[in-house]
Amino acid sequence: MKLSELGEFGLIEIIQSIAEKSQNPRYDSWRRLLVGIGDDTAAWQAGDYIELATTDTLVQGVHFNLNVISWKELGWKALAVNLSDIAAMGGIPVYALLSLALPQDLEVENVTDFCHGLAELANQFEVAIIGGNLASSPDVVITITIIGFSKSNRILKRSTAVPGEQIAVTGFLGLSSAGLKMLQKKTTLDNETTNILRQAHLRPTPRIKEGQLLLQRGVNTAIDISDGLIADLDHICQASKVNAQIKIDRVPVHPLVKVYSLNQGVCRGQLNIIAGLPGSGVIANAD
Amino acid sequence: MKLSELGEFGLIEIIQSIAEKSQNPRYDSWRRLLVGIGDDTAAWQAGDYIELATTDTLVQGVHFNLNVISWKELGWKALAVNLSDIAAMGGIPVYALLSLALPQDLEVENVTDFCHGLAELANQFEVAIIGGNLASSPDVVITITIIGFSKSNRILKRSTAVPGEQIAVTGFLGLSSAGLKMLQKKTTLDNETTNILRQAHLRPTPRIKEGQLLLQRGVNTAIDISDGLIADLDHICQASKVNAQIKIDRVPVHPLVKVYSLNQGVCRGQLNIIAGLPGSGVIANAD
Repeated sequence: MKLSELGEFGLIEIIQSIAEKSQNPRYDSWRRLLVGIGDDTAAWQAGDYIELATTDTLVQGVHFNLNVISWKELGWKALAVNLSDIAAMGGIPVYALLSLALPQDLEVENVTDFCHGLAELANQFEVAIIGGNLASSPDVVITITIIGFSKSNRILKRSTAVPGEQIAVTGFLGLSSAGLKMLQKKTTLDNETTNILRQAHLRPTPRIKEGQLLLQRGVNTAIDISDGLIADLDHICQASKVNAQIKIDRVPVHPLVKVYSLNQGVCRGQLNIIAGLPGSGVIANAD
Repeated sequence: MKLSELGEFGLIEIIQSIAEKSQNPRYDSWRRLLVGIGDDTAAWQAGDYIELATTDTLVQGVHFNLNVISWKELGWKALAVNLSDIAAMGGIPVYALLSLALPQDLEVENVTDFCHGLAELANQFEVAIIGGNLASSPDVVITITIIGFSKSNRILKRSTAVPGEQIAVTGFLGLSSAGLKMLQKKTTLDNETTNILRQAHLRPTPRIKEGQLLLQRGVNTAIDISDGLIADLDHICQASKVNAQIKIDRVPVHPLVKVYSLNQGVCRGQLNIIAGLPGSGVIANAD
């Protein structure tokens, strides 16, 4: 069977089952583990706090298009998608490792711009870039690993939702998707709209503070919804074994997205915001 | 300027200078940092022990050839090169994150074999595979991140060598390189030699125990020499600001490599074992 037939989540299940076959409570590693494969980050007990680690890869032509995104924006975004996973656990990011696979005929200046974009966001969240790897490759492949921790010795998980809870999201939905569509189709909009949509897609702000606030307020469940509200709410439902109901008119879609959807004839479904499937929990998003 | 003109180490210097511009002693991240970019792993103070993190990427066609290495061997090797970096710091590996960028027409069975090879080695060192990332990509790109720690609250570094110290290596040199040459040239050798050379290149054993033993015996300096004795000894010399002398007849070259070098007309320089440059310190290798 080909990977395309099995799909991403089928493959994750296989990898998880192989990894967990080695599970041994006598090993220090497994004994301290709190969350393994299948949440936004892994988590383990490290002394009197919980430590978190997550990794995310962006592949040229698959996750980004260098005709659309600048190198500086790419550096920012590559870090942002990782920080967003830490945010969804209610964690604080601390260290970043940067692995770059790059074509040898690339201009050094591009990589410098990339690093400046990455460092700008890292600095904003007091994250230190402490190591990584350089490799030669036909396409640009960026892998960032973030190590963080939870101050409160609690974390937000996917598997803790219970019936009766409310579903909430941070911020408006759909802006990032609308930004992507606008950039792909080279749609001409007024300057302010263009700027807001572009920033939403290319310079998302990780919800680090919001994640911690949720923890402080006693929330137990969250997920990064960069895959879209429905797909990611479904992950909470699966992990927590609950159903969910969404009232579509209560989903906070940004006014610009509504305008844009009508103007461009793009249905909201394509912008990942149509609702009505299973789910219960509290949701944090990065866009 | 192109990356090919600047070279890997030139680019590392640029990234390091950008990363360190954000250095701020008021940040928890920087205050706890013991070793940043430029050693085998990063290291920071985490309570009463030292924590380590490292990442390594293997790119299809650059670091491995699927006509030569099996998927199971690839899984083993991808983890081994990372564990070797932890070994060179005198650390104990604990957790692994696996990021796979894979073509969608790949057979699922190949990925399963890969994971079995990886899990076999992980299990041997009691490492838990706790997370990662899956992405679609034209070529196979494997990035593994390892998190470990040092029991003794000391680590082996590149920058601590002082004049008068002896240089030592773990095991024989040249076997892995000879194995690569044999596999590339499809050289026919007797079964035993083929097997030893093949294993040395495709199933290297990380020197985790040796690294810890070195620490216990009061050694301060080490480096993973997967790039070859001279290149990696030079890194110690640069970081420690020392020179080194190597007596070429004292370098422990495996007898099979000597035989193989003569038979195949491959000079030892091509096998990364010719010596005679600067350096002082103690060296741990993975091959």
